[in-house]
Amino acid sequence: MAVKKYVHFFGSGKADGNGKMKDLLGGKGAGLAEMTNLKIPVPAGFTITTEACNEYFRNKKKYPAGMWDQVLANLRKVEKAMGMKLGDKENPLLVSVRSGAKFSMPGMMDTVLNLGLNEATLRALVRKTGNERFAYDAYRRFITMFGSIVMGIDRQVFEKALERMKERKNVHLDTDLGAEDLRELVKEFKTLYQAQTGAAFPEDPLEQLKHAIDAVFGSWFGERAAKYRKLNGIPDDLGTACNVQTMVFGNMGENSGTGVGFTRDPSTGEKRFFAECLINAQGEDVVAGIRTPLHIDELKRRLPAAYKELDRIYKKLEKHYRDMLDIEFTVQDGKLYMLQTRVGKRTAAAALRIAIDMVKERLIDKKTAIMRIDADQLDQLLHPTIDPKAAVEVIAKGLPASPGAAVGKVVFNAEDAEKWAANKEKVILVRPETSPEDIGGMHAAQGILTARGGMTSHAAVVARGMGKCCVVGCGAINIKEDLKQFSVDSHIIREGDYITLNGTTGQVILGQVPLTQPELTRDFATIMKWSDEFRKIGVRANADTPKDARLAREFGAEGIGLVRTEHMFFEGDRIKAVREMILADDTEGRKKALAKILPMQKGDFIGIFTEMKGLPVTIRLLDPPLHEFLPHTDEELELLAEDMNVPVERLKARNKALREFNPMLGHRGCRLAVTYPEIYEMQVQAIMEAACESAKNKIRVGVEIMIPLIADVREQEVMREMAVRIAEAVQKEHKTRVPYSVGCMIEIARAALTADEIATQAEFFSLGTNDLTQTTFGLSRDDAGRFLPYYIEKGILPDDPFITLDRKGVGAMMRMAVEKGRSIKKNLKIGICGEQVDPKSVEFCDLIGLTYVSASPYRIPIARLTGAQAALRKKMKKDLSKASV
Amino acid sequence: MAVKKYVHFFGSGKADGNGKMKDLLGGKGAGLAEMTNLKIPVPAGFTITTEACNEYFRNKKKYPAGMWDQVLANLRKVEKAMGMKLGDKENPLLVSVRSGAKFSMPGMMDTVLNLGLNEATLRALVRKTGNERFAYDAYRRFITMFGSIVMGIDRQVFEKALERMKERKNVHLDTDLGAEDLRELVKEFKTLYQAQTGAAFPEDPLEQLKHAIDAVFGSWFGERAAKYRKLNGIPDDLGTACNVQTMVFGNMGENSGTGVGFTRDPSTGEKRFFAECLINAQGEDVVAGIRTPLHIDELKRRLPAAYKELDRIYKKLEKHYRDMLDIEFTVQDGKLYMLQTRVGKRTAAAALRIAIDMVKERLIDKKTAIMRIDADQLDQLLHPTIDPKAAVEVIAKGLPASPGAAVGKVVFNAEDAEKWAANKEKVILVRPETSPEDIGGMHAAQGILTARGGMTSHAAVVARGMGKCCVVGCGAINIKEDLKQFSVDSHIIREGDYITLNGTTGQVILGQVPLTQPELTRDFATIMKWSDEFRKIGVRANADTPKDARLAREFGAEGIGLVRTEHMFFEGDRIKAVREMILADDTEGRKKALAKILPMQKGDFIGIFTEMKGLPVTIRLLDPPLHEFLPHTDEELELLAEDMNVPVERLKARNKALREFNPMLGHRGCRLAVTYPEIYEMQVQAIMEAACESAKNKIRVGVEIMIPLIADVREQEVMREMAVRIAEAVQKEHKTRVPYSVGCMIEIARAALTADEIATQAEFFSLGTNDLTQTTFGLSRDDAGRFLPYYIEKGILPDDPFITLDRKGVGAMMRMAVEKGRSIKKNLKIGICGEQVDPKSVEFCDLIGLTYVSASPYRIPIARLTGAQAALRKKMKKDLSKASV
Repeated sequence: MAVKKYVHFFGSGKADGNGKMKDLLGGKGAGLAEMTNLKIPVPAGFTITTEACNEYFRNKKKYPAGMWDQVLANLRKVEKAMGMKLGDKENPLLVSVRSGAKFSMPGMMDTVLNLGLNEATLRALVRKTGNERFAYDAYRRFITMFGSIVMGIDRQVFEKALERMKERKNVHLDTDLGAEDLRELVKEFKTLYQAQTGAAFPEDPLEQLKHAIDAVFGSWFGERAAKYRKLNGIPDDLGTACNVQTMVFGNMGENSGTGVGFTRDPSTGEKRFFAECLINAQGEDVVAGIRTPLHIDELKRRLPAAYKELDRIYKKLEKHYRDMLDIEFTVQDGKLYMLQTRVGKRTAAAALRIAIDMVKERLIDKKTAIMRIDADQLDQLLHPTIDPKAAVEVIAKGLPASPGAAVGKVVFNAEDAEKWAANKEKVILVRPETSPEDIGGMHAAQGILTARGGMTSHAAVVARGMGKCCVVGCGAINIKEDLKQFSVDSHIIREGDYITLNGTTGQVILGQVPLTQPELTRDFATIMKWSDEFRKIGVRANADTPKDARLAREFGAEGIGLVRTEHMFFEGDRIKAVREMILADDTEGRKKALAKILPMQKGDFIGIFTEMKGLPVTIRLLDPPLHEFLPHTDEELELLAEDMNVPVERLKARNKALREFNPMLGHRGCRLAVTYPEIYEMQVQAIMEAACESAKNKIRVGVEIMIPLIADVREQEVMREMAVRIAEAVQKEHKTRVPYSVGCMIEIARAALTADEIATQAEFFSLGTNDLTQTTFGLSRDDAGRFLPYYIEKGILPDDPFITLDRKGVGAMMRMAVEKGRSIKKNLKIGICGEQVDPKSVEFCDLIGLTYVSASPYRIPIARLTGAQAALRKKMKKDLSKASV
Repeated sequence: MAVKKYVHFFGSGKADGNGKMKDLLGGKGAGLAEMTNLKIPVPAGFTITTEACNEYFRNKKKYPAGMWDQVLANLRKVEKAMGMKLGDKENPLLVSVRSGAKFSMPGMMDTVLNLGLNEATLRALVRKTGNERFAYDAYRRFITMFGSIVMGIDRQVFEKALERMKERKNVHLDTDLGAEDLRELVKEFKTLYQAQTGAAFPEDPLEQLKHAIDAVFGSWFGERAAKYRKLNGIPDDLGTACNVQTMVFGNMGENSGTGVGFTRDPSTGEKRFFAECLINAQGEDVVAGIRTPLHIDELKRRLPAAYKELDRIYKKLEKHYRDMLDIEFTVQDGKLYMLQTRVGKRTAAAALRIAIDMVKERLIDKKTAIMRIDADQLDQLLHPTIDPKAAVEVIAKGLPASPGAAVGKVVFNAEDAEKWAANKEKVILVRPETSPEDIGGMHAAQGILTARGGMTSHAAVVARGMGKCCVVGCGAINIKEDLKQFSVDSHIIREGDYITLNGTTGQVILGQVPLTQPELTRDFATIMKWSDEFRKIGVRANADTPKDARLAREFGAEGIGLVRTEHMFFEGDRIKAVREMILADDTEGRKKALAKILPMQKGDFIGIFTEMKGLPVTIRLLDPPLHEFLPHTDEELELLAEDMNVPVERLKARNKALREFNPMLGHRGCRLAVTYPEIYEMQVQAIMEAACESAKNKIRVGVEIMIPLIADVREQEVMREMAVRIAEAVQKEHKTRVPYSVGCMIEIARAALTADEIATQAEFFSLGTNDLTQTTFGLSRDDAGRFLPYYIEKGILPDDPFITLDRKGVGAMMRMAVEKGRSIKKNLKIGICGEQVDPKSVEFCDLIGLTYVSASPYRIPIARLTGAQAALRKKMKKDLSKASV
């Protein structure tokens, strides 16, 4: 049997492998092979395959037969290509050794540089460079890296020796040590190495190489790497490749240099080479910031040939990779070498500009442009952001509930927020948690910070709906409402003190930090337009007011997926009537109070219908438990009693009677309508009157009446009968017909399990993934803050299921609802209104065939983009599977 | 095409049908046919089939072709058999008309008696009986029944006329009216009839009959009947049969009589004829209690021939039906007629005795005996019951949370309960709701009454565990703790007042009612023994203490399915250490406090292992949220602070910090161990030390360590690793091996959905159907009391899912857990520990292949019985399906 090919050479313009062989060569190895094949000067080297790594482990940590011979043979090819020899006393080859798996992975082995140095080659290096200090510095670095990374010695052992040396020499910087000092240090390092490992530092470069390869392979099953794979579902049997590559030095004199750059401006996306360099320096020096890098024009001036070559290469690379690249190069003795190239990081604005420009340049097509835009980045464009150049003092971190940034003076209650804002003050509302009563204050504030609550707590949901920066569940802050201050560690922040919030990261920052304001550019509009060309899944908005509805239309919503009617209950005088209803002793009393609310609700609906111009509007009937509409503290109750002119005892008694152990699982949603049918009756009346009156005014309407918290088909049947009865009566009364349908939320496990039955009584479903996640996981979103972070930290769960849809559990429920629902009604309209519009979630929604996703207006653009990406990914997979047939 | 047979005759010892034809003849019709075929004298008659009814409706309420002719033909057969003729002026036949579906159903048509009476036949009747009063009384009753039941006239119309007549005559009782008065009344009734219907009262008996048949058919789609069918899943297309039967009269003189009886003593089960009779009286008179019935010996004395016949018949019937029967008979002019026979109702004690006796008499086999025992009735035998002869004043009704009855003086807190009980007072503890702190008081009380909470609230679960009478969720009572009194309607019950609770019905009764004490008889033991012969599913107990464990063994438990370790946390001084643990600032502090708890927990486990003698013991690690261990009111906190010598502010702050929005979905179960691993570590340590020490003392142990609230396999993996690590260490330390396994609760929807993954890390599952019901339904058991009763009342849900397993939703989850779990481990042990041991639930558990059910010790006998019944039912179904192949 012929021996397998375990080692792939690259160098001299020809590589055994290519860029597509990531499985076998790892990402880095494949990239080096690709560049080599492009005739781009890359220091020669070779890649040991992942297959070799796997066989090594299957083989009780022995190299597979023939591998070492192939290493030696390829080493000879490298030596030949570079005109140097490993261990040679005249012209020694030095190499770097790096791990490189298919996926970039934390915990894999770091780079070992300068491998091949020993007493003999060191002397050769001194001679060759004429720089003793450089050579000894390289040697001591090599011993440190080899000792710590390859042999597992605590790096501190070497660092401390270095410190002692500096103390002895009375200097502060490593660079202040001379050649003599470093020679001494090398000696000490070797002694330390022997003390730690029980063996002398290996002089034989091949022995060094073997150890390094072993360490690269070994790092595949290192603790961190193994854990990372487990968490990310990366199979253990992928293995890692090992890259051995010739070292080049940019610090070999004035004819040498090094630099890094981007093929386009990573900040604006402008098409111009954006790079910096250093003459007679090593790559590390640029990174370490020891010397200030020069504009790339300096390279042009001082090493014009190398610059010309670089200019040719970066353009060639960009054309080849069809993307903006981040590159690293070194000029050794006048010769340019490319050390790395990868897709470059960029700002959101740059990402849009580059994608659009490249389409214009015919480098990429629109599909590729869409796939390249990162949804989270897009979000930045819709909100103020913290100036990246600003120095900030982060004092605490909460959950990033609603993106953007906000600066303002701290206030501790909603009333103050409104008062201060009326005086043109910018305020940040800080609360233990928010409740529907705080909405006015939240509106008035620039941003909201809460000590409790999770990603879908009241504060989070409302703030996202308002497009307002919000940080929640910041347990580190200790609020003392009575003193109007909060403390965190040793800081005490008082009312009126400035803080800055970063809702994208969850950071709470001391003082006023300058913000960058968002701007909806033409590029943005172009990307949205292109997205809609590819998107299959519908995009609707969660919007509760005519104002939100208008915003939703502006952002491109194709309808409203969720009108939360309870939000209308809080505005202005309505809350009074609502409370009157709650306090009523009987049905008659409730009906009387509800009659006061009806015209106001009707007005809202007319406003929303008018804005939506005939697009579908899904209106959810009252969902929260009634106690949410009463204040909770004794003081507030006393004020209310006075205001309502009822005995406070009665209010207290009612409040106590309504109290629930687990409100999430309590008397809410359609359960309210089972006990108090008059509430939903009033709401349907208001909706249908609004629809009929709008229709009479030539406004087209698309009414979808939605029943929340359905667990059994009989509930839906009873509710549907009621809705149809009233809808028909109102239409008859108004002598007009309007299209309307009655559907329900699927947000309880049992509803998903019995969706086939429920579908017989529902014209549409809306998957309420927030509550579905809560019931499927048995997890209260408002309480999860106490333990969920530990779950993520310890790797028990990969993501917060309230942010990224849990496909395994909640997803299974959703799939069940879709399959069972459509087994009864083939074309059943099924949406999702849980705000999950991140790419993974939308991809899943598209995959299981949902009709639309719905999210707050400010998240519509993200949904349009991720919807397009999901459709494109699906198409790609289909094309792939067709191709493979 | 031949006309179908729509009418089945019975009479003269020969019936067209038989007892098995319930589908076609309905239950009543089939029974009459069966008796007739047994040569038992039954007044002749005929049954119109359910098929005729169905065709009638398909046919727009027209009789199917040929039916009326068959009615007339069969009427002639009846006339011939009885020697009388319908409408005959000499010897008129009178008939009764009754509906009779396959299943007995409320809302179906009542009986119309004396049909065939008109002016002419009335006179014949007067002549024949020589009793004018009797004849007119029969006539006015007929008009009332026909008018109201058949023609739908409000019965009040006739009742009021009767009242007016009595006023005019200045008499009090109907029987005080003479023949003259009744004749006058008949006249008035006819006028009223005409006024209401617009037509004269029909004189033609055939017209009367046709109307009556129409009414019987019509009642099938009556509102109540239709609703009942919908609720109980009875198909609409079964239809009802219609029975037309000759009237016989026991009030035709001293040679006539009537009676009712049981073939054995329905109270004790003793084998003796247990009947009463009246001479010269109608059946109605016995039922109405107008005259005091005589001992059956009176019949023997006065009508010996009839008695002899009766004696022969009841024995024959019992032998035929192989069960104790309830019979009704009439002697008309010396001739005995049987009017009805059906299986007789009996007390629990009688049920056991009869079943066992009949096995001895070889009338039935053991299987039949087991199937006949009603599980709920069996429960009566284990608890005191209210003397059925006592007159009671029920003042309120709550949920029947724990069966039995209790009498005592009312106290309003646990402390008082303990104090009063120490003074030999019997008390009933009345609380808004109970919490773990009340356990001492609950122990001390005879019974518990709460205003809030559902069937699985704390009070309910704990009381059932104690086998103590308990009524919960009694919303009608208004407790004023400060005044130590509660009110309900106009009653005010103060501390020290007597009340009586019926935990089997949920009734709250004023004052002291005499109770009947339970007695575990030899009959009981026999039934248990027989049950175990047939039962396949295992029966375990939920038991938390050595005392409970002993009780469980005595009741026949085959292991413990659930030890709730948290209950151990409350006892005596332990709660102090627990609170110290909760208040600790860091892991070290918690460990210190836990070290104090460890020896106490160990002691409990040793006690339980010792009692269980090697039977498996499933121990659930700590489940409730930590705040359950702290008191909640400010006063209690202040006392505790003093007691613990810590500032009350610190306690309050901790209490506030631990507060949760939805504790059910909060920081509990294994989530506690993710954040505070030391708690579970201590518990596993205590369990394994207890096991090792027991093993050393030659006590066999079967340890099953159970992790609660698992939602993802990774949780179980982490917990299992911890448990195995500690278990191995303890065994090594003790130099002994004990069998142990680690499993988990499946009580969250997501666990059921991913049970295949979880099974890789679990050696057993226990289905926690309480929490599974809560999460599947999105329903808090503690809050459901506010709306769940409406659901049952309005027929939206058929049962309280916390009492009877919801097969459709929760059952689907259970099935999923079993199938997925066993797809990985074929013989995975899977139990259920949710206390659902009612026949329907156990049948389902048996059906899906659960290994065992587990319930509190007092419910073990029910579980043993229902387990046997489930196995027998399964076998019967199998045999049936085999037979049909």
